[in-house]
Amino acid sequence: MNHKSIVFILGWIIKIEGLFMALPTLAAIIYREKAGWCFLGVGVFAFALGSVLTYFKPYNNKFYAREGFVTVSLGWIVLSLIGALPIYLCGEFPKYIDAVFEIVSGFTTTGASVCPDVEALSRCVNLWRCFSHWIGGMGVLVFVLAILPMAGGGQNLKLMKAESPGPSVSKLVPKLKDSALYLYGIYMALTIIMFALLVLAKMPVYDSLCTAIGTAGTGGYGIKGDSIGSYSPLIQNICTVFMFLFGVNFNFYFLILIKRVKDAFSIEEVRWYFIVYVAASVLVALSVTSQSGGFFNNLHHAFFQCASVMTTTGFSTVDFDLWPQFAKMIMIGLMFVGACAGSTGGGMKVSRFIIYFKTAKKELSYLIHPRSVKIVKMEGKKIEHEVIRSANIYLICYVVIFAVSLLLLSLENYDFTTNFTAVAATFNNIGPGLNLVGPTQNFAFWGFFSKIVIIFDMLAGRLEIFPMLILFSPATWRK
Amino acid sequence: MNHKSIVFILGWIIKIEGLFMALPTLAAIIYREKAGWCFLGVGVFAFALGSVLTYFKPYNNKFYAREGFVTVSLGWIVLSLIGALPIYLCGEFPKYIDAVFEIVSGFTTTGASVCPDVEALSRCVNLWRCFSHWIGGMGVLVFVLAILPMAGGGQNLKLMKAESPGPSVSKLVPKLKDSALYLYGIYMALTIIMFALLVLAKMPVYDSLCTAIGTAGTGGYGIKGDSIGSYSPLIQNICTVFMFLFGVNFNFYFLILIKRVKDAFSIEEVRWYFIVYVAASVLVALSVTSQSGGFFNNLHHAFFQCASVMTTTGFSTVDFDLWPQFAKMIMIGLMFVGACAGSTGGGMKVSRFIIYFKTAKKELSYLIHPRSVKIVKMEGKKIEHEVIRSANIYLICYVVIFAVSLLLLSLENYDFTTNFTAVAATFNNIGPGLNLVGPTQNFAFWGFFSKIVIIFDMLAGRLEIFPMLILFSPATWRK
Repeated sequence: MNHKSIVFILGWIIKIEGLFMALPTLAAIIYREKAGWCFLGVGVFAFALGSVLTYFKPYNNKFYAREGFVTVSLGWIVLSLIGALPIYLCGEFPKYIDAVFEIVSGFTTTGASVCPDVEALSRCVNLWRCFSHWIGGMGVLVFVLAILPMAGGGQNLKLMKAESPGPSVSKLVPKLKDSALYLYGIYMALTIIMFALLVLAKMPVYDSLCTAIGTAGTGGYGIKGDSIGSYSPLIQNICTVFMFLFGVNFNFYFLILIKRVKDAFSIEEVRWYFIVYVAASVLVALSVTSQSGGFFNNLHHAFFQCASVMTTTGFSTVDFDLWPQFAKMIMIGLMFVGACAGSTGGGMKVSRFIIYFKTAKKELSYLIHPRSVKIVKMEGKKIEHEVIRSANIYLICYVVIFAVSLLLLSLENYDFTTNFTAVAATFNNIGPGLNLVGPTQNFAFWGFFSKIVIIFDMLAGRLEIFPMLILFSPATWRK
Repeated sequence: MNHKSIVFILGWIIKIEGLFMALPTLAAIIYREKAGWCFLGVGVFAFALGSVLTYFKPYNNKFYAREGFVTVSLGWIVLSLIGALPIYLCGEFPKYIDAVFEIVSGFTTTGASVCPDVEALSRCVNLWRCFSHWIGGMGVLVFVLAILPMAGGGQNLKLMKAESPGPSVSKLVPKLKDSALYLYGIYMALTIIMFALLVLAKMPVYDSLCTAIGTAGTGGYGIKGDSIGSYSPLIQNICTVFMFLFGVNFNFYFLILIKRVKDAFSIEEVRWYFIVYVAASVLVALSVTSQSGGFFNNLHHAFFQCASVMTTTGFSTVDFDLWPQFAKMIMIGLMFVGACAGSTGGGMKVSRFIIYFKTAKKELSYLIHPRSVKIVKMEGKKIEHEVIRSANIYLICYVVIFAVSLLLLSLENYDFTTNFTAVAATFNNIGPGLNLVGPTQNFAFWGFFSKIVIIFDMLAGRLEIFPMLILFSPATWRK
């Protein structure tokens, strides 16, 4: 294990996190809030600590996949432990575990809060919560890659592979640093457009900023008690559209930017993502019709809520825990499907499901005609055996972690629906579940041990399981 | 598609089912019950129909895997449709769909009943319910193979592969017919031993017979309202032991019979089956301690209940729906694990989980050390790539069918726990779930459409998914 390189990269992460804290500090200055001192203090401390750790560049350049996975998982843990400090020190989160929970939920773009009254939080804390979505959405290491003159080569691709969501990572352009820059460029541009539209739709500037960065990361922290419920339908519709857009594979935007529009629209994953989303929304709207107002009002909320859950954002305009069981099942189903690979969204990813369906179809046709040779293809290209195998193992690990989490949470003796949707909503990085963890509830009631379990699930979900498993696997640390 | 061969084998199945109806007819004669006429009538009709269908032996011997799968799934459907006739015609199940549900639940060894009061049923009907477990447990086609002089060769192995539970089928002895005979021999012997022990433990003879054949098939139809709850602890313990024994891979008994005892005890699946069972029972006993009597009494019930659920039998001595959430989660976990491959039990099978864990471990170690070459082994032998792939696809199909079933059942707007455990308990062929489908409840309240969904799940669960999928796949029926 190349410890020095790992510490070096962790140092950069800490340093950059320190810089990021300038934003909430600035907000605190504008709104004259005392909590700003905590952000300033921790920010300076983090920047100093990071600077020390990155002072000596490691001479050993050997950086294997193992190092990549360990760096990413440790990086996210360190990021969270430090990110939790200011909101703990300023006293708005009395327990450190709650502050860590809140900020892990932020960085992993989950959006499950332990705070019973978000409107009572100071503005700089709320901004930091939403900003953590933005940082975590695209990935902090991608950011490191984008701006830093690091030792090039395999190292960077390994880091990016370990952090990026979805079954496979392709570089947009030959140089990885440029890919990372493009990604952050698109991300930034979409965020600014959304922010501008929200301001035009007469949302207050501060609210617009928080909502835009929270949506961009598909995070879902609301700064109001009822999330997006009390804003105008126009603002809600803007959110719907942008939640959907941030769940799209960013390759799509890149292809459009370089004017390969036809290629962009032929990405199978994006097409299925769209089809599933529309179909689910219409079914939900039809199913809730019997319960409430007009069909078009229901369609409005259904489109919002399905986008929110499928992209794993987690905003809400209505309490979908009150919907009929069929609509709730569709929501739970969407939680697992998730958004596109290569987006900021979580879940299992649409492309994995495409791989699953295609391999299952191939197996059936193999059983029917054992002599026929079939290849599993996506967009005309053969899906490599490695990708399929990895997707299968992902499913196995996913199911096992899910089951173990459910078992551990059940020790607190809450009902099955609460436990099941708590795991589903955090492991898939959505936020709200049903019953005790429904859209109008929060996660404060869980005990210390359960919070640790949920924190693990959020991190494992965001990093797509393998980095966390490798971090805790004894084989990793053997000589 | 070789229609004539399929019809020929279906004919044999119908004919044998007709013969099997002699048992309830005999019971009806002994107990002088009118319902016996229905069994006699349908039995004679089935035997006659089967004889007509098997009158001409098909000259075309081409029998591919496709034919095997279609024959097995159609065979089980026909078996159920005819098996439901007598209990419908005698008037004790007013609706035909309920009769079909009850008898599919019987043949698939599920044991989920739509009957609100089983003690009100006539004895011959109750015997037929339990006997259907025994027939379905080992598989009706294995029976056909065991006793019939059929066109030999690949045809039989294909049938057996399609019907047998577990990821792979190995012949015990070179001749398949002999393998089938051995299996049924062991099955019959264990059943008789259990029956004898129950009688010795002072259970009434009729009750002993029903309980023994119900346990042998790991079915779980009780003939009392409280299942096994009102019998003596000794009788309950005999059931515990035999439920466990019928969940063991039958290769184990075969190896013991031919005195390769060491080989028998080195079967990994059997060892893990034992470990998981004991661990789960102890955990359950510890977790329910806080709620009821002494620890040893709890251990008694925990061992019974865990054996019942893990082997997918479904008997009960206590209402485990009243247990704390942690114990209930262990029960739900065991439902999915299921028994050993090559036993009469259902679920996903212990050996599949061994394959999953081993492949996941291999993948992790591959990620850590990409250059190391590792092979997944079981009992010293390499697990073939085909077996692993098939187990993976099984998991995919399993999860998808589970999710779709859950969605369809949710149309009736019952709670999540009921829907989830209804699917878990029927797809894994256990019987009782939680809440509305708990151990003291029944499945009568579901609507027609939901019953069809559950019937499909029970059949798909028993036949391990692929035969049912192939039956309903358009590609199967294309020229």
